[in-house]
Amino acid sequence: MKWARFEADGAIVYGIVEGEEIAEVRGDPFSDYALTGNRQPLAEAKLAVPVIPRTFYAAGLNYAAHVREQAERRGETPNFPPQADIGYRANNALIAHGEPIVIPHDATDQVEYEAELVVVIGKQARRLSEADALSCVLGYTIGNDVSERTWQRSDRTLWRAKNTDSFKPMGPWIETDVNLEDMRTAVRLNGQTTIEFETNAMLFGVAHFISRMSRYLTLYPGDMVWMGTEGKSPQMKDGDVVDIEISGIGVLTSPVIRETAADD
Amino acid sequence: MKWARFEADGAIVYGIVEGEEIAEVRGDPFSDYALTGNRQPLAEAKLAVPVIPRTFYAAGLNYAAHVREQAERRGETPNFPPQADIGYRANNALIAHGEPIVIPHDATDQVEYEAELVVVIGKQARRLSEADALSCVLGYTIGNDVSERTWQRSDRTLWRAKNTDSFKPMGPWIETDVNLEDMRTAVRLNGQTTIEFETNAMLFGVAHFISRMSRYLTLYPGDMVWMGTEGKSPQMKDGDVVDIEISGIGVLTSPVIRETAADD
Repeated sequence: MKWARFEADGAIVYGIVEGEEIAEVRGDPFSDYALTGNRQPLAEAKLAVPVIPRTFYAAGLNYAAHVREQAERRGETPNFPPQADIGYRANNALIAHGEPIVIPHDATDQVEYEAELVVVIGKQARRLSEADALSCVLGYTIGNDVSERTWQRSDRTLWRAKNTDSFKPMGPWIETDVNLEDMRTAVRLNGQTTIEFETNAMLFGVAHFISRMSRYLTLYPGDMVWMGTEGKSPQMKDGDVVDIEISGIGVLTSPVIRETAADD
Repeated sequence: MKWARFEADGAIVYGIVEGEEIAEVRGDPFSDYALTGNRQPLAEAKLAVPVIPRTFYAAGLNYAAHVREQAERRGETPNFPPQADIGYRANNALIAHGEPIVIPHDATDQVEYEAELVVVIGKQARRLSEADALSCVLGYTIGNDVSERTWQRSDRTLWRAKNTDSFKPMGPWIETDVNLEDMRTAVRLNGQTTIEFETNAMLFGVAHFISRMSRYLTLYPGDMVWMGTEGKSPQMKDGDVVDIEISGIGVLTSPVIRETAADD
């Protein structure tokens, strides 16, 4: 089942994607819902970010080649994370499928995409074993962890590098039925495939992260966990279009524009 | 004006603290509200966290003696932040005035308080000058940035060290009328004053942080910024009570308990 959020009569509502249409619901996937009977053609719907989380978790370094590539760029030996320590991103940066990534005019050219699997929590959870961890998951969507690499190195935190407005495209919807073992992530920059990798080839998997997190913290419906990315990314520039496809979920598309100093 | 959130008839509602009573409102301080006519004695009210933010910002290192103390503890020379780079904390960890800080049984004894001024954003804001920055502020409350220092050094992120459930007491309410230049922060551990400092003696002030943040990101009503702490803190243990007072706002009280392995 595919859960989307979209505009209907000026409000943002949830709906279920059925073929080429969205069937509107009253309520949401985290509690009760009922079909309203209203339907919209999917192609004409203005999609919204599929969920605004209470807390926005992100695994960060979680694929081997990406850890090696990031270290090489800094002239360091790769430092694989010894344990699953979750990090954070910020809600201000979220944008929907189709909305533009806006590069600030004072950013360098080193603005890169990171294609990520996003886990959406459906039920409140604490102290889940690894075997039970996936029981709290509603479904999965796609995230693009856009990063300005010079700010990532110079600033004390990741605030500008990762959380500038529009730096977290997410969508197009939440797919509840996936097989984690059988998914591939592919990125296309202006239609050219730049990387393709096995989605689940993570250093620490979804169940391990959720179990470990839930030992110390309560997960809430709508919380989400971005699972990290693989490999290395070319830079994105004004006029580019980046598509991230995860098989079994869909395609997240983002045009890229660069702000001019005059916009300031 | 003091804005509190509290329980009334099983729901969490906003109210205005007037002397020894809370006057319940319909709505909230971020949009429209109207008095319902219901009143509760303040002493009997069960207070809730005064706001759950869309994004939970935290300045981190922002007072001189605290930067020196943290460096000394690691045997390093103090490294003053060269610019105002905002960080993050997580909503799961928030607890209200009077609720207990629960130390996990596998934490060390190095669990410490950090007394912080909390800025609550009232209006959506982007690209504010430093002169205009405070125009988006609704008011101020008190936060306790509880920290487990061994996890703070060992984990790749601050997730357990700072964001274990219950590690972010906040309250008791939001005070809209303060004079930043005339406030003092004091901490009492079991009634004994352990530190007192000038609240506004920050490395980077409230207006500077908000202006710089708003250059890259949109601030939303209900977002909050924790402004950092001064000095050094003794350890908190099972049975302790910690009070943080900021003159002009009030007192945030938190009992401390340690989980036993049997609770696991």
